[in-house]
Amino acid sequence: TVSISDKLDAADKGEYRHYMLKEIYEQPKVIKNTLQGRISKDKILEQAFGTEAKAILDRAEHVQIVACGTSYHSGLVARYWLEEIAGVPCSVEVASEFRYRKFVVPKNSLFVTISQSGETADTLAALRLAKTLGYASSLAICNVAQSSLVRESDLAIMTEAGPEIGVASTKAFTTQLVALLLVTIALGRRHGLTAEAEAEMVAALHSLPEAIESTLTLDAEIKRKSEHFADKNHSLFLGRGAQYPVAMEGALKLKEISYIHAEAYPAGELKHGPLALVDADMPIVAVAPNNELIEKLKSNLEEVAARGGELFVFADVNTGLSSGPGLISVHMPTVASVIEPIIYTVPLQLLSYHVAVLKGTDVDQPRNLAKSVTVE
Amino acid sequence: TVSISDKLDAADKGEYRHYMLKEIYEQPKVIKNTLQGRISKDKILEQAFGTEAKAILDRAEHVQIVACGTSYHSGLVARYWLEEIAGVPCSVEVASEFRYRKFVVPKNSLFVTISQSGETADTLAALRLAKTLGYASSLAICNVAQSSLVRESDLAIMTEAGPEIGVASTKAFTTQLVALLLVTIALGRRHGLTAEAEAEMVAALHSLPEAIESTLTLDAEIKRKSEHFADKNHSLFLGRGAQYPVAMEGALKLKEISYIHAEAYPAGELKHGPLALVDADMPIVAVAPNNELIEKLKSNLEEVAARGGELFVFADVNTGLSSGPGLISVHMPTVASVIEPIIYTVPLQLLSYHVAVLKGTDVDQPRNLAKSVTVE
Repeated sequence: TVSISDKLDAADKGEYRHYMLKEIYEQPKVIKNTLQGRISKDKILEQAFGTEAKAILDRAEHVQIVACGTSYHSGLVARYWLEEIAGVPCSVEVASEFRYRKFVVPKNSLFVTISQSGETADTLAALRLAKTLGYASSLAICNVAQSSLVRESDLAIMTEAGPEIGVASTKAFTTQLVALLLVTIALGRRHGLTAEAEAEMVAALHSLPEAIESTLTLDAEIKRKSEHFADKNHSLFLGRGAQYPVAMEGALKLKEISYIHAEAYPAGELKHGPLALVDADMPIVAVAPNNELIEKLKSNLEEVAARGGELFVFADVNTGLSSGPGLISVHMPTVASVIEPIIYTVPLQLLSYHVAVLKGTDVDQPRNLAKSVTVE
Repeated sequence: TVSISDKLDAADKGEYRHYMLKEIYEQPKVIKNTLQGRISKDKILEQAFGTEAKAILDRAEHVQIVACGTSYHSGLVARYWLEEIAGVPCSVEVASEFRYRKFVVPKNSLFVTISQSGETADTLAALRLAKTLGYASSLAICNVAQSSLVRESDLAIMTEAGPEIGVASTKAFTTQLVALLLVTIALGRRHGLTAEAEAEMVAALHSLPEAIESTLTLDAEIKRKSEHFADKNHSLFLGRGAQYPVAMEGALKLKEISYIHAEAYPAGELKHGPLALVDADMPIVAVAPNNELIEKLKSNLEEVAARGGELFVFADVNTGLSSGPGLISVHMPTVASVIEPIIYTVPLQLLSYHVAVLKGTDVDQPRNLAKSVTVE
C-alpha cells in the first residue's frame, strides 16, 4: 500500500521548506478557485450552488453551525457576518458539545456543517443527529467532494483549497471563510441586502487574492519579528468583533505547531481576569483593523503595556499603532472591512509558522495530532 | 476618608487567613439565604420574585444573557439549564462584545444581566443598549440591591451572598447559579415542566447547602494534592456539557490568583488542536460527574495520559476514576445532576486558593485586577 507520505514526497513542496508554508502561499490561488464561477462583476451567481440551493436558502430563517477545531472558528466568523450582513440569527456550536445536549430547534433553521475532510467524526454524527431533530435542511462547507459529509447533506458548497497536507489548517480555513461569505450574501439577498451592498461585497471578494498577495509580502518582516517570540511559553491573542475568532484561530495555530500555550480573548474581557497573567513573559498578540472598535482596542492595549506586557500588533497602517518600546507592530494594508477576518488570518499563520521553525518542531506533523479526526 | 481596606480589617476574616477562603466557606450559608422564602417543600415560590415577575416570565420565549468574567460563566451554565430544563432557547454573550455588534433581536426575548456589583460598566451599557432594541423585558441577577443594574432593570433577583471582598469571585458565582436555576424552573413551568420534575429540582436545591458542606470536607485533601500543581506554569481544564463553563470558571480562578496560565476546553475539542500542548509540564484538570458523558470523558482522559500528561480529576466516587500513576483524583459526593455545576465549582475554588497560597501571591488582591470593573 502507498501511504500519503509516500505519494506526496518532498518534491511536492516545491520551493517551500514545509507543506504548511506552501499552503499559506497558495491562498490567493485557491481563494480565486473558490470564487470561480460563483461571482460576476457585481453579484453572486447563486445557480452555481446547484439547483436545490434556491429552495433551501429561501426557507432559512435561522442558521445553526456545527464544527470542530479550525472549522469551528470559521463558523464563529460567519456568525458575525450572518447577523450583521444577512440579518439572520445564527448559533455556532462545537460538534462534540452539540451532540450531547438538549436544546430547542428554531423554526426553519438551516443546519450548516464545516469540515475540511468531510469525515470529522463528531461533525458527521452531529449532522446525522440533526436530521432526526427537525432542522429545515442541511448545508456542508467542505473541501472533499466524495466525503460522507457532502454525501449526507442536502446541499454542499465546496471549498477549492486542493489537498491540504499540513496538519495545521491554513488554506482550508480561509476558503471556508470565502464560502461562508458567499452563503451570507445569498441569505442577505432574501433579507433586505441591497444590490449596492452586494456589489460592494462582491468587489471586496474580487480584491481578496491580491490583498492576500500583498499581506504575504510581509513574510520576511514577520519572520524577523517572530524571533522576539520564540523563547516565550505563553501568549494571549486579542481581537474584538469578528476579529475575536480570528484571534482564536491564530492562538490555535501557535498551540498546534509551536506548542506555545496561546489563548484568545475578546479584548474587552481582559480586565475581568486574564490581565492578572500579564507580565514581561506573556506577550500579547492583537489584530487591529482600523474600524469602529480601534479606540477601544487601543485602550485595552494600553492596559497591557502599563503592566509590563509586550505587545505584538498586526495593525492597519492608518491606526497610528507603530513599533516603539514594548510594542512590535506589523502594518497591514487597508482592505474592505468585510474581508478583514480573512486578511488578518494570514499574518497570524506566518507568525506561528516562523515561531515553530525557530523552535525546531515538526511543523507539518505536530506531536499528538492527526490531520482528520475520524474518531470521536 | 475611610477606604474599604480600613473598614474591613483582618478581624473580619475571623479564623480564615484570607477573605477568599472565608467566602468559599460561607457558601452553604449564603446559598441557604438565596433560597430563603423562594422555595417551599416541593415548589418554587414565584411571588417572592415580586409582583411584576409573572407577566415578565409569561411573555419570555427566548433568553439573552449578557455578562462579564465570572458572571459570564454563570450565564453559560444557565444556558444548558434553560434549554434542557425549561425548553427555552438561550444565547449568552460577553457584554463588551454584545455592545458592538449588530444582531437580530428574537421575539419576546428576556434580556438577563448578571453582575455581582451591579455596576460593571460594559454590562450596564449593554442593558441600556438593549432597552433601545426591542427586548421584551429585563431581569438583573445581582448582589447589590442599590446598584444601577437593579435600578434600571424591570425585574431583579438578588443573590444573598453578602459583601464579597476577595477580588476572585466565589460565593457570588454559586449564588448566581442558584438564582439562575430558580429562573429556569419558573420559565420551565410555562413550557411543560411537570410538577414532579419541579419537585425533584426543588429537593436538589434543598440539598445544596449540605452537599457543599460535604464538598468542603475535601479541603485538606485538596490542599495536600495542590502541591503537585504549584510548580506548574500552565494547565488545561476540561469539562463536557454544563461542566464546560464550570471548567472555564475554574481556569479563570487559577489565572486570577495564582497567575498560572489555565485554559478551559470542552473535552471533545482536545484532539482538534490543544492536545499538541500536552506533556509532563502541562497538567490537565477535569471535572467528572457520573453522568451520561463519563465514558466519553474517560476516553478523552486516556488520550491525555497516553501523551504523558498528568491528570488531576475531580470525579464522582462512582466513576471508577481513582488515583494511580499519572492520575490524582479527588472523589466527589454523588448529587442530583441538576446541581452538579454548583457542587463541582467548589473544589476548583479550593484548588486555585491553595495553589495561590503555595505560590505566595496576594490572594485577595491579585495584581492588575479590580473587584468591580466600573470603567470600560
